[in-house]
Order: sequence, then C-alpha cells, then structure tokens
Amino acid sequence: MPSKAAASQHVHDEDPAAAHRQLVNRLRRIEGQVRGIARMLEQDEYCIDTLTQISAASGALQGVALALLEDHMRHCLAEAVRIGGVVEEAKIKEASDAIARLVRS
Amino acid sequence: MPSKAAASQHVHDEDPAAAHRQLVNRLRRIEGQVRGIARMLEQDEYCIDTLTQISAASGALQGVALALLEDHMRHCLAEAVRIGGVVEEAKIKEASDAIARLVRS
Amino acid sequence: MPSKAAASQHVHDEDPAAAHRQLVNRLRRIEGQVRGIARMLEQDEYCIDTLTQISAASGALQGVALALLEDHMRHCLAEAVRIGGVVEEAKIKEASDAIARLVRS
Amino acid sequence: MPSKAAASQHVHDEDPAAAHRQLVNRLRRIEGQVRGIARMLEQDEYCIDTLTQISAASGALQGVALALLEDHMRHCLAEAVRIGGVVEEAKIKEASDAIARLVRS
Repeated sequence: MPSKAAASQHVHDEDPAAAHRQLVNRLRRIEGQVRGIARMLEQDEYCIDTLTQISAASGALQGVALALLEDHMRHCLAEAVRIGGVVEEAKIKEASDAIARLVRS
Repeated sequence: MPSKAAASQHVHDEDPAAAHRQLVNRLRRIEGQVRGIARMLEQDEYCIDTLTQISAASGALQGVALALLEDHMRHCLAEAVRIGGVVEEAKIKEASDAIARLVRS
Repeated sequence: MPSKAAASQHVHDEDPAAAHRQLVNRLRRIEGQVRGIARMLEQDEYCIDTLTQISAASGALQGVALALLEDHMRHCLAEAVRIGGVVEEAKIKEASDAIARLVRS
Repeated sequence: MPSKAAASQHVHDEDPAAAHRQLVNRLRRIEGQVRGIARMLEQDEYCIDTLTQISAASGALQGVALALLEDHMRHCLAEAVRIGGVVEEAKIKEASDAIARLVRS
C-alpha cells in the first residue's frame, strides 16, 4: 500500500492493475451490449429502440477510449517527455493523431 | 421478385431481408472487434494500437446506426407521414431525438 | 392564425417564421463566439480555456443543425413522402447523407 | 533561425508565432462561414445545403481544436511533466477533460 504522501500525489493511479481490470470489464459489457443489439435487429425490434442502444454502446466505447487515453498520457507520454527530443516529439504527434481519429470517429 | 416498375421506385429496397441480414452480420463483426479490444487490453498491447481499434469499432457502430436510421425513415417515418397529424408529428420528433443522441454520442 | 385544432396537431410549428428567426439569432451568437475564440488565441489566453470555448461553439453549431434537420423532416421530407416514388426515395437518401455528414463532422 | 540541432528536435515547431497566426486565420474563415450560414437561413436557401455548410464549419472548428490541443501537449503539458508531481497530475487531468469535452461536443 502506498504511503499517504504518494497517494495524494497520484490519486488516479493508486492501483493501475485494478483500473486496467475495470476497463477490460467495461469492454466485456460493451461486447454484451453489441450482441444484444444484433439480437434486437434479428427479432425486428423497433428501430428507434435499437438506435438508442447503439448510441449507448457508442458512448460507452468512447468512455473506454477516453480512460485509456488519459492512462496513456499519464504513463507512455509522460515518459517520452522525460526522455525528450525526437522521442517526445514522435509520441506527442502519435497521441494527437489518436485523438483526431477518436474525435472524428 | 418485384416487378420492374416497383424495383425502379425502390432502388435501395429490393430485398429488405438481405439488407437486414447484412446489418446483423456487421454487428457480429463489431462484437468480435470489441472482444478483440478487450483481449488487446488484457495482453497489455500498446495503448495507441488499442485506441485505433476502438475508433474503428466506434466508426463501424455509427455506420450501422446510419443504415438503420435510413431504413427507419424509408419505412416507419414515411408511413407515419402518410397517416399524418399527431402520428406524423410524434414520429418526426422521435426520429429527431434519435438523431440528436447519435450526433452527441 | 391557425385554428385550435390545427395548432394542437402541429405543436412545434405554430410560428415557423419565429422559429426561423430564432435559428438565425443562434447563428449570430455562434459567430460572436467564434470571433471571441480568435481573440482569445490572439491574446494568448490559456489553451484549455480556448478549447472549452471551441467545444461550446461546436455544440451550439450542432444544436442549430439538429433543429434545422428536424424542420427539414417536418416540411421538405414529409412533402416528398406525400409525393412518393422517386421523389420520396431521393429526399430520404439526401437526408440520410446529410445526417451522416453531421454525425461524422 | 534555429540551429540544425534545435530544428531536428522540434520539427513541427520551428515558428510557433506563424503557426499561431495561421490558427487565428482559420478561425476568421470559420467566423465568415458561420456568417454565411446565417445568411443562407435568412434567404431561405435549401436546408440540406445549409446543413452541408454547418458540417463543414463544424469540421473546421474541430480541426482548430485538434491543432490547439497538439500545441498544448507540446508546450504546457510537456512542461508540467518536467515539473512532475501534482502539477503533472493536474495538467494531465485537465487535458483529459478537455479531450472528453471535444469528443462529446
């Protein structure tokens, strides 16, 4: 268990393994949502209800992406900045491109 | 098989059952993509690669929603407009709300 | 002035001219927001504050698009459905394409 | 003019003032686009054409946001990471929140 001082510095980061497992669980639920949407279509449920479920799954997927991106900035990107130079520049460009794909998807 | 005249009036609509099956298949593929993303996370693959897959799944989900919405306008909404009055008004409001959820998800 | 019966059937539609003027006013405000964002950039204000204003302007622009689209479905699209045939089909395709551009912008 | 070594380290960054002016110019063009959209509405131009222009302005606004965000990561965020501790953590959280607003707007 981290000391109180360390915990206050890294509030979002106390147990990265637990945060990671939580993201995997969120994806498992989204997988179930998408399976449910396929079933709704097969059973000819009302299109608007199916669309509502697609919007929900899409929002949930975006939530996972945002959490993963925050995690990426906190670890990989921060490490690249500490290395500096071309490594820093490359990782910032790479993160920007990933954000652009996310915003436009 | 529809007559030539009917077919020329409903070009996108010749075989609604086939279009429907195709949407179910696209959702099955998205379900597989989401399962693959969970696996990428579990195996600690590089976050940016995982994010790219999430953007792809999210775009695919949106594609299904847009196809479903077009189908909805072609059938349910058009029927409501032919009925007119409060039915028409209610269905247009409902479709607008679904579009808003989609745009904002 | 419409009769009470007509008004109850078209609740969102009592004064299309007023609704129209309101949309123009919303766009004038967004124009002012965008001008304000350019000024924030010129005066080197903090990037995150500028980004917040861009998200607000972008959300407002989307709100206008959604209102305009609802209006389009209520009038042009409904009229095309009443005409039917290739006119109906063309207008539904056109509306779908506009929705896709909106969802992906 | 920067030395070759400095230039190779900051390839995207040789003239930040020019990049900044370019962003201001892009916003001025978007301001003009929004003014044009208001005029299209006032002159009752065809809704679908107006919607196309809104999608274009919205995409352009998003492009400015993405460029600004990349710039923010390259300067403010990188500096915060070099400072480390609570400053780093706070700036990463702040950037994440800005990205979330952008993705959801």
